[in-house]
Amino acid sequence: MTVSCVFCSSDGGEVLWRDELCRIVLAREEHHPLLLRVIHARHVREMSDLPAAERARLMERVFAAELALRELLAPEKLNLASLGNVVPHVHWHVVPRWKDDAHFPSPIWSAPERPSRSLVVDEPLRARLRERLATLLSSA
Amino acid sequence: MTVSCVFCSSDGGEVLWRDELCRIVLAREEHHPLLLRVIHARHVREMSDLPAAERARLMERVFAAELALRELLAPEKLNLASLGNVVPHVHWHVVPRWKDDAHFPSPIWSAPERPSRSLVVDEPLRARLRERLATLLSSA
Repeated sequence: MTVSCVFCSSDGGEVLWRDELCRIVLAREEHHPLLLRVIHARHVREMSDLPAAERARLMERVFAAELALRELLAPEKLNLASLGNVVPHVHWHVVPRWKDDAHFPSPIWSAPERPSRSLVVDEPLRARLRERLATLLSSA
Repeated sequence: MTVSCVFCSSDGGEVLWRDELCRIVLAREEHHPLLLRVIHARHVREMSDLPAAERARLMERVFAAELALRELLAPEKLNLASLGNVVPHVHWHVVPRWKDDAHFPSPIWSAPERPSRSLVVDEPLRARLRERLATLLSSA
């Protein structure tokens, strides 16, 4: 734990699923309100600092987040990224993309090309995401 | 194979390592000449379209690329991303980052903040990358 790290000192979003290894949160990012973050429970800098088996378990959670978003929302494309230049605590961005979102086909970190796509992130949708993640990860 | 796909019709960079599953290439990206790409041999759209065991094997190659870059170059941070909005053929960007590179700490897809870091990508360095990848993946 590092006191100054936002992912050590807060959940970093609304927790949709959690186990001892990581949590999956709805980050409510501007332009991309359905971006999920998969955040390691411990303050680890790089994926290659983790034992191989732990890396593999974390990635299965990232892919479950991808699959839950695909099944519920049928986006045009899924984007996955582990950057951490600002917050060097392993976390993955799992981002559903649509042709009419603010940045498509550019990465979400480029300059917006149009207004944000209208996306309703209501409690029924959040409940379906929680349920789908729980099912996909029930044997994880 | 999709004829119009650049990763089906070309290597997409200088091949440093290859097996039946994927290749690891030096992409020579502007601003980030040591960006490696791990490109799936087949035209597959999303990671979650792959069987779990194949996903895991591909990720071990991504993490080997990360580790080779860390061991040889000691960058400030490693960035990993699978986007594919323009070329929907599974490929991973493995990007060594330095505090004085053109974009740090922003993602490499944001607007450049300063001139590129000077990085010499000569044959001795490429040979060491090939050798390190071969060693790391010798039992893959």
